[in-house]
Amino acid sequence: MYPRSISNLIEAFKYFPGVGEKTAERRAFQVLGMDIEQTNFLIESIQNVKSKIKRCEICNNLTEEDKCSICEDSSRNPDYLCVVEDPKTIVYIEKQGIFHGYYHVLNGLISTLDGINPEDIRLDKLIKRIENGHFKEVIIAVKPCLEGEMTSLYINNILSGMDILVSRLASGIPMGADMEYIDPITLEKAFDNRKKIV
Amino acid sequence: MYPRSISNLIEAFKYFPGVGEKTAERRAFQVLGMDIEQTNFLIESIQNVKSKIKRCEICNNLTEEDKCSICEDSSRNPDYLCVVEDPKTIVYIEKQGIFHGYYHVLNGLISTLDGINPEDIRLDKLIKRIENGHFKEVIIAVKPCLEGEMTSLYINNILSGMDILVSRLASGIPMGADMEYIDPITLEKAFDNRKKIV
Repeated sequence: MYPRSISNLIEAFKYFPGVGEKTAERRAFQVLGMDIEQTNFLIESIQNVKSKIKRCEICNNLTEEDKCSICEDSSRNPDYLCVVEDPKTIVYIEKQGIFHGYYHVLNGLISTLDGINPEDIRLDKLIKRIENGHFKEVIIAVKPCLEGEMTSLYINNILSGMDILVSRLASGIPMGADMEYIDPITLEKAFDNRKKIV
Repeated sequence: MYPRSISNLIEAFKYFPGVGEKTAERRAFQVLGMDIEQTNFLIESIQNVKSKIKRCEICNNLTEEDKCSICEDSSRNPDYLCVVEDPKTIVYIEKQGIFHGYYHVLNGLISTLDGINPEDIRLDKLIKRIENGHFKEVIIAVKPCLEGEMTSLYINNILSGMDILVSRLASGIPMGADMEYIDPITLEKAFDNRKKIV
């Protein structure tokens, strides 16, 4: 019904999870209404994200260089390592300014139900980093759910022979909630009340 | 906080009306997660929409050619001209298969409040088309609001000397609507336009 280039763009917008026919249609018309500078910037940004973004070779954070800006920052506190599930969580914690150590991004969580094993999320890379480093505390900041618990316990188990405190963000974070939607005060409390995994 | 290419993409998504920080962030990460074929198709579709889409020289509908597919379709009923505000309305009416005449797209509606005059929405083009055509009825299918009423009345006024029926889509209570959720103006219209049950 629409000219081909419009119906193609509608189809393309449907690649975004959660975007249906109506929203895709609205977005396509919004593109039609944009300045050419805006669409050029949009296109260029999509291209750059796909071509430039890679994982930090130390911590798996998103970066355009070999190492991310946090791993490169020698002014941070080398005693603390915060383990997160997702690079977005790093940005959110950083925005609050309540943690000044280093981070490590997992590629997911252990899930026996979905057949995701420690090797699938490259836990060996994290363990090796801790073994070769001088961290005094590893703070596990993954969301509180079954998979989060399993992953925490697994990491704690492996590190149990070492002289490192392994802690977990305190509960107070609602079960099943996404990390980046937690309000700052709850997040800070959760940092303050972190507990050693026994 | 994010690498530059990601924060640029987040900014770019905010060009879409109604898209805020959170949604833009989610969309940017969805782009990161897409196949390269998908992003290439998305980029190409945006480029094509901006470079190929123009207005039909007869009816202002969106088209990749000089004339749109409806204006080029000689099998349609030449007695009826349906005046709409937006090309999207054409697609919606066509999907229902309830109208088989031709269309004309206005570039908005007359609004004295916003200083939008008949010449701003190129009503002269519509009038000239009707004067030079052989339409028996002009059906005005713009949304029922103050601006819609003014535009309808203006068109009706100009065409009053000609042997053409100018009509307006009935307004009233939508099918299946709950009586108590109908706004007062619609309810009043529905009373005014009540019809004898035959």
